[in-house]
Amino acid sequence: MMKRVNVAVTPAAVAIGLRGFVVVVIDVLRATTTITRALENGAQSVIPCLEPEDAIAVRNRVGRDRVLLGGERGSQKINGFDLDNSPASYESATIVGKTVAFTTTNGTRALQRVGHAGAAAVLCGSLNNRDAIVTAIAAIDAKEALLVCAGQDGEFSFEDFFCAGAIANECSERFRDVALSDAALAAAVTYRNGEHRIADAIASGEHAQSLGALGFGEDIIDAARLDISSVIPIYRDGEIFRL
Amino acid sequence: MMKRVNVAVTPAAVAIGLRGFVVVVIDVLRATTTITRALENGAQSVIPCLEPEDAIAVRNRVGRDRVLLGGERGSQKINGFDLDNSPASYESATIVGKTVAFTTTNGTRALQRVGHAGAAAVLCGSLNNRDAIVTAIAAIDAKEALLVCAGQDGEFSFEDFFCAGAIANECSERFRDVALSDAALAAAVTYRNGEHRIADAIASGEHAQSLGALGFGEDIIDAARLDISSVIPIYRDGEIFRL
Repeated sequence: MMKRVNVAVTPAAVAIGLRGFVVVVIDVLRATTTITRALENGAQSVIPCLEPEDAIAVRNRVGRDRVLLGGERGSQKINGFDLDNSPASYESATIVGKTVAFTTTNGTRALQRVGHAGAAAVLCGSLNNRDAIVTAIAAIDAKEALLVCAGQDGEFSFEDFFCAGAIANECSERFRDVALSDAALAAAVTYRNGEHRIADAIASGEHAQSLGALGFGEDIIDAARLDISSVIPIYRDGEIFRL
Repeated sequence: MMKRVNVAVTPAAVAIGLRGFVVVVIDVLRATTTITRALENGAQSVIPCLEPEDAIAVRNRVGRDRVLLGGERGSQKINGFDLDNSPASYESATIVGKTVAFTTTNGTRALQRVGHAGAAAVLCGSLNNRDAIVTAIAAIDAKEALLVCAGQDGEFSFEDFFCAGAIANECSERFRDVALSDAALAAAVTYRNGEHRIADAIASGEHAQSLGALGFGEDIIDAARLDISSVIPIYRDGEIFRL
């Protein structure tokens, strides 16, 4: 049972050594929401890749019949890829039993960054699976939970901080003796301020507004749905499975 | 007139080039609160120094009759120094007409870090002079205001983020067409949640609690007083003066 919850507002704020930590990577719009949806709908696994070429290499190695290519650059589907980065695109009919080789601008980079720092576990968190993530980080034997916001191009991202606050707030409500770091405390305050109008709250950020302007407004509403999935995506040896 | 307000949650989050920015360094507990108080009470200037030896070197260079040594290590007065880091210690009778060679764990390091990045102006902000700082950043011709939280040993500090939110929130209320970055938006939400009980809000952070446990609880109450000073400390060529 962890004793403290901390938040890193960007991946760059993560210290190198994470031994003894349970880490939750958060990219609400949209990578970790989409990864959760893919596993919810029956994908075998998701392999985060830094670059589109890396995803193509995964497909060539594992086999075209078993791998779909997914992700975005500039928020849009990548040329020659099967799927974009909208959670709604990851329907059962398309992805059941498949591995998704997945590359996005912020989320998959954040996963790569924390994936080799010796953490007890690396999970993918979103508003959709908030409650399941809280249960998981309580069950994993770790001294501290570190919620890592993927951010936007290295900058602070409102919706990721808000989601970190949703997780931190739930930890402090459900478990006694869990301390919140100063960053976790501010995130929890930010979440509680918007918890009764989550879609509006996360739509107020600059990143969400640019995503909305590109026509992805439905993704914001989709990502804002709290506790709709019990999937706990865990990242281990370069691949994300359902725990 | 700036068009956007952004917040760096720690000095490490500040990009190297700050040309065209007005920068506000915030260390509520206690460096920028204390610097504001020193100038309010008649100090000629404050010279931020990285190390105690640097402060002693300033005194030797400028002259013992004109310089007082101030600051802290481990929150306590430094051996051989004249003043600690409590704002209340900087009384008129002691400091009028003097220059304070000043070294603290977080605030003076943050000032040094941003002081050489080409900003249009570097100011020292606190809750005490919040309103004056907002007036100043509006008056200075800059494309963007960057509020830099000094943080605590490189980590996110609740009270600095809260104060950044107080400044960002006031900017968006007083001036039309000022956009808040995602970090500024979250900070403003955090501030508004606690604006009617500021001392309690900033006392809830880990740093404030450790400071309180060391017997500096009065400093927290003192630092929480909003808009009690019209002093605008400006950092230029290594020295902080009243604008």
